[in-house]
Amino acid sequence: MKLYDELKASAEETRRASKKLATLSSAIKNKALLAMAKSLEAASEHLISENKKDLKHGAEKGLSPALLERLSLTPKRVSAMADGLREVAALPDPVGEIVEMKRRPNGLQIGQMRVPIGVIGIIYESRPNVTADVAALCIKSGNGVILRGGSEAIHSNTAIAAILEKAALASGLPQGAVALIKTTDRQAIFELLKMDALIDLIIPRGGEGLIRTVTENSRIPVMKHDKGLCHTFVDASANIEMAEAICMNAKVQRPAVCNAMETLLVHEAIAPDFLPRIVALLRKASVEVRGCNKTMALLGPTQEGLSPAAEADWTTEYLDLILSIKVVDSLEAAMAHIARYGSQHSEAIVTRDHANAMHFLNQVDASAVFINSSTRFNDGYAFGLGAEMGISTSRLHARGPVGLSDLTCKKYIVFGEGQIRE
Amino acid sequence: MKLYDELKASAEETRRASKKLATLSSAIKNKALLAMAKSLEAASEHLISENKKDLKHGAEKGLSPALLERLSLTPKRVSAMADGLREVAALPDPVGEIVEMKRRPNGLQIGQMRVPIGVIGIIYESRPNVTADVAALCIKSGNGVILRGGSEAIHSNTAIAAILEKAALASGLPQGAVALIKTTDRQAIFELLKMDALIDLIIPRGGEGLIRTVTENSRIPVMKHDKGLCHTFVDASANIEMAEAICMNAKVQRPAVCNAMETLLVHEAIAPDFLPRIVALLRKASVEVRGCNKTMALLGPTQEGLSPAAEADWTTEYLDLILSIKVVDSLEAAMAHIARYGSQHSEAIVTRDHANAMHFLNQVDASAVFINSSTRFNDGYAFGLGAEMGISTSRLHARGPVGLSDLTCKKYIVFGEGQIRE
Repeated sequence: MKLYDELKASAEETRRASKKLATLSSAIKNKALLAMAKSLEAASEHLISENKKDLKHGAEKGLSPALLERLSLTPKRVSAMADGLREVAALPDPVGEIVEMKRRPNGLQIGQMRVPIGVIGIIYESRPNVTADVAALCIKSGNGVILRGGSEAIHSNTAIAAILEKAALASGLPQGAVALIKTTDRQAIFELLKMDALIDLIIPRGGEGLIRTVTENSRIPVMKHDKGLCHTFVDASANIEMAEAICMNAKVQRPAVCNAMETLLVHEAIAPDFLPRIVALLRKASVEVRGCNKTMALLGPTQEGLSPAAEADWTTEYLDLILSIKVVDSLEAAMAHIARYGSQHSEAIVTRDHANAMHFLNQVDASAVFINSSTRFNDGYAFGLGAEMGISTSRLHARGPVGLSDLTCKKYIVFGEGQIRE
Repeated sequence: MKLYDELKASAEETRRASKKLATLSSAIKNKALLAMAKSLEAASEHLISENKKDLKHGAEKGLSPALLERLSLTPKRVSAMADGLREVAALPDPVGEIVEMKRRPNGLQIGQMRVPIGVIGIIYESRPNVTADVAALCIKSGNGVILRGGSEAIHSNTAIAAILEKAALASGLPQGAVALIKTTDRQAIFELLKMDALIDLIIPRGGEGLIRTVTENSRIPVMKHDKGLCHTFVDASANIEMAEAICMNAKVQRPAVCNAMETLLVHEAIAPDFLPRIVALLRKASVEVRGCNKTMALLGPTQEGLSPAAEADWTTEYLDLILSIKVVDSLEAAMAHIARYGSQHSEAIVTRDHANAMHFLNQVDASAVFINSSTRFNDGYAFGLGAEMGISTSRLHARGPVGLSDLTCKKYIVFGEGQIRE
């Protein structure tokens, strides 16, 4: 009960702050973001020493070297965080934007204006830079934000949030605009998810367990940042050089992210030419390949780093230098595989056939569908939105990269001259 | 468990149907809607006789005459239902609309295409025409729909849905595209709300109890259609004739709907001129008035149909010919009252002062904010959207009137020529 009361008092403060934030000028919000950036850089040493506590605990708890690497702060990473804040300050303010304005036959002028959502709660795991990124996006879009980071980064997040809060307050932002939950008690998540009178949107960023917990227990609307099981389909008519470049980019440029390719689908007509070439390139890049029967038959079973795919391979988001490959006999078979196994995240086709390209584009259900380009482009920067909260795998409100304008909602505005309803 | 299994099997069928619906041409969907309209009209007598069973049960259960009137079907109402289907057929198909398309510096063309949400569940009370309206909007936007009407209209809804389903199937729509839940067991609602793998959106339309039940128990995203506690503020500089026309329209044109005015706020500088006039008009229209102390002092306490307002009056959605009136000393006081007591539905100002009009427009938080016009315009037809699902009081995805395009979501589409991420 004490935990609930404390969290509620904090959420109420953020709620009050959100009312003020909603009406702040862009100038004040930007001034605050630049001050926050400066404060982070000035506190670089302190942040790194607090981060060391997290790294020490993490090592003791047996976190993998990859996770520890993601968790660690360096002077360069602190600067990058500060630059992230400056980038958000430089983006246009979405609040007050009038999306459309039409005149009705009765003379009413009716449009929609972007306004902040209100209070946004973010529940995230691991990387501490998310704390700064998310706070910046919420402030710029006029929203109060409640941050709940993972226990493995609690010292780093607490230090970052304290610096951000202090700088925000000194720049004229209201008390509570940015609020970090300082307890690592997991119960705090369940308590937060009940506060639908105080929090307007919950964004979970993390593993499947977290997303499931949030979806099942939230009374507050949820915008999921779920997994990406992404495919690239190399059609019979694909330009082979283009297909090689796109597949290699989608798999190896950054294998641990959600928009990386996990399964390669190859049309059987091009497989004898394409498969030996792409597998040679993949092996050179240390990618382990798991092939369907046809793939294995075409490549021969004795190659190192090549093994038969099991059913589980089609459902696995490796997030690693591993790729499953399946030969299909048609575009329809490729699309059926994607519909069955894909996570509706990022799906690509490489083809020279216009009808096939448009069929794939229209029929495939995903947050982003790519023709002749890499799934790695499913990203706020690449799509021209600027910084992003992440990539939404929800269908409602925002799907795909979530930029500043997705952190607003629209109210109708009506200019009349005395009109009444007949 | 049996109930859950039955509902699940039905939802799975609708899910499969939704995949086919998503790819149907506008021509087939429109043909089905027109056939459904014709079938409803042809079955008018049958529908009215089924409706009589509901009216009989309703009268036995002691439903109010107003509720029984809402529930009743007449030949005219059946025709209006059919015309509603024809109107939806005549609206543009939102599916496949490309919302924007931009070229990035690397040559990628990136845009967003509207696609169906998937399966929509509607939980509604009372009026049986909702069954046809909602089915039409969901079919046109390519969504499967699961309908759960109120027990008081079960015979009417079952008959309407059976006719719609039969006509839809005969016109080439997939089995299960429109599915009505035929049990009146309330447990069915709780079972439905767990099916987040099969249903993409839940829309509750009804009283506060229903909305609360759905919000607290749903794992599926919810778009609420909650109450409207709407205000009109008559500013010091208002044109008095205009203010009279707007206030009368907002209160009496259709008092039982969510966008009707419930509280009138009057600036103290105009109150001595305006209040006696508007109250005389309201009384002539049989509106009962509940005034604040200042209102009572200005009007004298002895008038018939005029009594002092209690605190509860500011929080009550009368949905009837009752109006609370409060005199305020400033625009800020009016906006503070709205922020405290309003339900963020429809809020209006009547003023000749440009700065006040714009301040009100920018600061007031509601699904629609009106300058010099009636709150009654917060409606899909009035806003030019055509037919609507209702008026969303949720902030995310769609706020205000929910038209066809709000029943879609957007996927990013990317046209490349071999681009890869650097």
